[in-house]
Amino acid sequence: MLGNFHVRTDLALEARESFEEDDVKIRGVRVETREDEEKEIRTTLVKIETENGARTMGKPVGTYITMEAPNMSGQDEDYHREISEELAYHLKKMIGEREQSVLVVGLGNRDVTPDALGPRVVSNIEITRHMIREYGRAALEGKRANEVSSLVPGVMAQTGMETLEIIKGVVEETRPDVVLVIDALAARNTRRLSRTIQISDTGINPGSGVGNHRNGINKEALGVPVISIGVPTVVDAATIVGDTMEEMVETLDSSGKVRGFGGALGTLNRVEKQQMIRELLSPHLNTMYVTPKDIDETVKRISFTISEGINIALGGMA
Amino acid sequence: MLGNFHVRTDLALEARESFEEDDVKIRGVRVETREDEEKEIRTTLVKIETENGARTMGKPVGTYITMEAPNMSGQDEDYHREISEELAYHLKKMIGEREQSVLVVGLGNRDVTPDALGPRVVSNIEITRHMIREYGRAALEGKRANEVSSLVPGVMAQTGMETLEIIKGVVEETRPDVVLVIDALAARNTRRLSRTIQISDTGINPGSGVGNHRNGINKEALGVPVISIGVPTVVDAATIVGDTMEEMVETLDSSGKVRGFGGALGTLNRVEKQQMIRELLSPHLNTMYVTPKDIDETVKRISFTISEGINIALGGMA
Amino acid sequence: MLGNFHVRTDLALEARESFEEDDVKIRGVRVETREDEEKEIRTTLVKIETENGARTMGKPVGTYITMEAPNMSGQDEDYHREISEELAYHLKKMIGEREQSVLVVGLGNRDVTPDALGPRVVSNIEITRHMIREYGRAALEGKRANEVSSLVPGVMAQTGMETLEIIKGVVEETRPDVVLVIDALAARNTRRLSRTIQISDTGINPGSGVGNHRNGINKEALGVPVISIGVPTVVDAATIVGDTMEEMVETLDSSGKVRGFGGALGTLNRVEKQQMIRELLSPHLNTMYVTPKDIDETVKRISFTISEGINIALGGMA
Amino acid sequence: MLGNFHVRTDLALEARESFEEDDVKIRGVRVETREDEEKEIRTTLVKIETENGARTMGKPVGTYITMEAPNMSGQDEDYHREISEELAYHLKKMIGEREQSVLVVGLGNRDVTPDALGPRVVSNIEITRHMIREYGRAALEGKRANEVSSLVPGVMAQTGMETLEIIKGVVEETRPDVVLVIDALAARNTRRLSRTIQISDTGINPGSGVGNHRNGINKEALGVPVISIGVPTVVDAATIVGDTMEEMVETLDSSGKVRGFGGALGTLNRVEKQQMIRELLSPHLNTMYVTPKDIDETVKRISFTISEGINIALGGMA
Repeated sequence: MLGNFHVRTDLALEARESFEEDDVKIRGVRVETREDEEKEIRTTLVKIETENGARTMGKPVGTYITMEAPNMSGQDEDYHREISEELAYHLKKMIGEREQSVLVVGLGNRDVTPDALGPRVVSNIEITRHMIREYGRAALEGKRANEVSSLVPGVMAQTGMETLEIIKGVVEETRPDVVLVIDALAARNTRRLSRTIQISDTGINPGSGVGNHRNGINKEALGVPVISIGVPTVVDAATIVGDTMEEMVETLDSSGKVRGFGGALGTLNRVEKQQMIRELLSPHLNTMYVTPKDIDETVKRISFTISEGINIALGGMA
Repeated sequence: MLGNFHVRTDLALEARESFEEDDVKIRGVRVETREDEEKEIRTTLVKIETENGARTMGKPVGTYITMEAPNMSGQDEDYHREISEELAYHLKKMIGEREQSVLVVGLGNRDVTPDALGPRVVSNIEITRHMIREYGRAALEGKRANEVSSLVPGVMAQTGMETLEIIKGVVEETRPDVVLVIDALAARNTRRLSRTIQISDTGINPGSGVGNHRNGINKEALGVPVISIGVPTVVDAATIVGDTMEEMVETLDSSGKVRGFGGALGTLNRVEKQQMIRELLSPHLNTMYVTPKDIDETVKRISFTISEGINIALGGMA
Repeated sequence: MLGNFHVRTDLALEARESFEEDDVKIRGVRVETREDEEKEIRTTLVKIETENGARTMGKPVGTYITMEAPNMSGQDEDYHREISEELAYHLKKMIGEREQSVLVVGLGNRDVTPDALGPRVVSNIEITRHMIREYGRAALEGKRANEVSSLVPGVMAQTGMETLEIIKGVVEETRPDVVLVIDALAARNTRRLSRTIQISDTGINPGSGVGNHRNGINKEALGVPVISIGVPTVVDAATIVGDTMEEMVETLDSSGKVRGFGGALGTLNRVEKQQMIRELLSPHLNTMYVTPKDIDETVKRISFTISEGINIALGGMA
Repeated sequence: MLGNFHVRTDLALEARESFEEDDVKIRGVRVETREDEEKEIRTTLVKIETENGARTMGKPVGTYITMEAPNMSGQDEDYHREISEELAYHLKKMIGEREQSVLVVGLGNRDVTPDALGPRVVSNIEITRHMIREYGRAALEGKRANEVSSLVPGVMAQTGMETLEIIKGVVEETRPDVVLVIDALAARNTRRLSRTIQISDTGINPGSGVGNHRNGINKEALGVPVISIGVPTVVDAATIVGDTMEEMVETLDSSGKVRGFGGALGTLNRVEKQQMIRELLSPHLNTMYVTPKDIDETVKRISFTISEGINIALGGMA
């Protein structure tokens, strides 16, 4: 749901990194990294354990798992299968092993390429709820049989309704045990795009970074656990300009090419610099996003990989 | 929503015609026809006024307006504008003149061409609910301002949920005054395809002809008035075979080409003939439909014409 | 390309079957069947070896391989992988083992669900021509590297041009060694739909059954070998009515239910019967087709399976 | 065709503006502006008359008409009609009044929202070539009858072929009198996006700004006149960062907030500054573009408006 992102990053991993330069351990936040060199997948667990940690990170208490795989937008099918299985492993742990009814929700706008990830994932999910209801679990021939249903709520500009209103109505009517939401995210760094999957048990909390919990798609709002899968596909245009700006200042200064250039800004601290850059930026930029030119291929491949992971985890008919 | 049509016609007009040969006036059913020769639009009003009439017709008590326009799938824009305005006229009368909140629901499967009518209509509706809620009616600059929202629920094979469950959940959460559903219909006669629009104040009542009210999308189920707009885009394959069969029997008999052919069937009455034909038909046929080869062009044009009609009626921002 | 099919079947297998009742060996036509029970795939080779055989069959001299797999529209991925591999095996034999440049052409109309097979297959083909031209075969890391390009020419109603004109122009400009065309076909029997793949080295010869070679997409027209892959997704509406009619006549007669019914037609031979039925059919029916209600799912799955087969055969980057 | 834009602007208007600060008249370039206040459309004619002017502007000799309309992405239908008519007026002048055969080519990638403009325009063009060829001009009932055909060649990543190869092949096979290409463009300034249409008689000349005429889709390559219609839908990510950077330097300097900041860069001239910024920018940025969040709505509306303009100009069947 890229339509109205306000935060500079939806990735807990990046939120954590922004503190790294200070080399300080954040109280209430636990971080573990595991590198599977053979599989070329790096998994980072960020666990926000206390309200204090949540405030510092600008994200709710909960578990955030990030899978980074450099070739995620490539064409190697076996590699994609491994990512799907790794994803399934984490999902199963969060959802639990017993049979449940799961509503899979594809957030975003199917008509905007980088925002179409959620709807595309949903289009490949094996749906079983109606069959189990009609024929019983026996129909699925002894396989583990979660009742799987799905929803593509669309975006507010197209429906006139808050996404949360639609999901809430459907959840109250069909009473799933768990909701699984898939969404395109905004990253801070272009290098994260198209190679990162974030899984979380906190749902979707837009604008959490700036204290806005109003439209969170989470347990608090829906009454059932909400697991989210997100892939960064865009960078906020204002962010990219600001970051490149900072980078240049640093480079120019150290290169000595243009003496005093960075120094002039050196009197400002990090937050002041960002504030100033934001003020100077054209307001046009707040309605713009940056995305790779081959985003169609990337979204196609990664959405298929994620839907395979979900199908494995939910033990559909595949 | 062509996925599971059981009835042989969704058109009240055709249900009425099936009695015409008997030249009998049906009690509790009023029929009026108006021909606008200049506009080349024929409008038929079928009003089912009593429960008795409803039983005979196999459709609920209510008003059914059918607009027939031979060139509806043609490219003449002015002609389409006239159809849109005629449609808007009937809709306004059913919805009422005061400002209301209207949820427009596009039924059907966007991935199956003749069933994509509903989703396509919705994609051209001017949506205002979120703007009115955020900025007030003033934002619409003095125009009549119905709060318009929209929903494309999808089909059960894709969602695992009954369409009614989804709509009901969203209606209970967002509380519109009226629901307007758009759907592709099954006709009995191929000559109705792509040139007929039916407007009704009874909602959608699948299988009403065979006594199945379970999943009706109507006032009874949703608690608010439901107006429906339908366009026949397919004919049930079993129907077309049966009808052609009957026609041939008659032709053969009267032509004298093959003496005794029809006569052999002549001992059976109409209902017996249909029953026998249905038994003999391959069960495969019940999962098949018949549709014109240029259905993509037709659905594109008519869905645009209908969305224009709705936009005029609801006084959106157009 | 369903837009203007005139023949009653595009399958050599069905053309052959129509003679089977007579239990006569057709001169110049060789038929071999292989049943792989474990894989549940039945492969039939129809080899038309002489001009005489071609006239009898109503199809050009050449090889026609039909793979029939009852669960082709199901969700079992391993099963689909086996079909892909079997398809790849036959393609490799027809294309030859040495590295070549192959133009893959997806015929049909992407906006009409059963006709979208060709365009959908093409959207999953690994394209290599531009990379090999830019970086050399080395870029593909030692893999067998056919130069693969692709084209979706669209249909005449959308382009105003004959499909052949477009393909011919592109072939003359880019000079591929082989053209591989993918197309949705019309079958005679609904039981073939969505479970049959036909591979042929004769290209596409529309209306070959009625002596119309004008627009053939074949070696004669393009100057390079043309291999075709086809999947029947529709039955001509006139065909289905005629066939059901015949079936009923037979059933009625043998059942004794309606004495003399079939007998009345018994004086006509097979071809006369068909001719008569065709004359009696509504001309409307010639612009209609019959297709299964779940055709969206079927086309999605089978087109993916075929694209995988092509990717394996052409040794793309997968 | 956004896939491989190298230039910073595809708009002659912007190329011209870049010299305006110097307030110098460019030799060999004539500029006229007309403001229609009632219609809120501003039309600028840039006529490059000499090779000298072409070199200075970085664009070929020819006529460039730019229509700017601030509400082009709004919903007012009458306003869009006016834009369509203005566009038709300019097209007619370029194409000429006599009946001709016109091939309309929709460049770009239909799967990437801001690049889908060309394919979307083509999908609403009234196609007549096949009908005139089959039934003669009489079939069109006395209307002016250009033979209109259309082509959506796709992008190289999907076809493996240069776009020019495909168009050239089709042009040589079908011999149109004129080619009309529609394309999404890259602007320099975000304020041009979604409110500007450029019409030119020079065709498409990618990279003309940097001396690359290799793949031009123009008269030289195709042998027939090529008219182009373009709408800027993206800004190159590197451009937006560079421009914002320059703007900030200027603002900071004049604001006095951070003394000496701009001054540090002040020793460099305009071209040196740009060169330096480009070097410093992350190479990632060269594969990225910036586009508005509501680009789906904008492309939908403007492509419809352009197709209407073309239909009026070519006097199709509408």
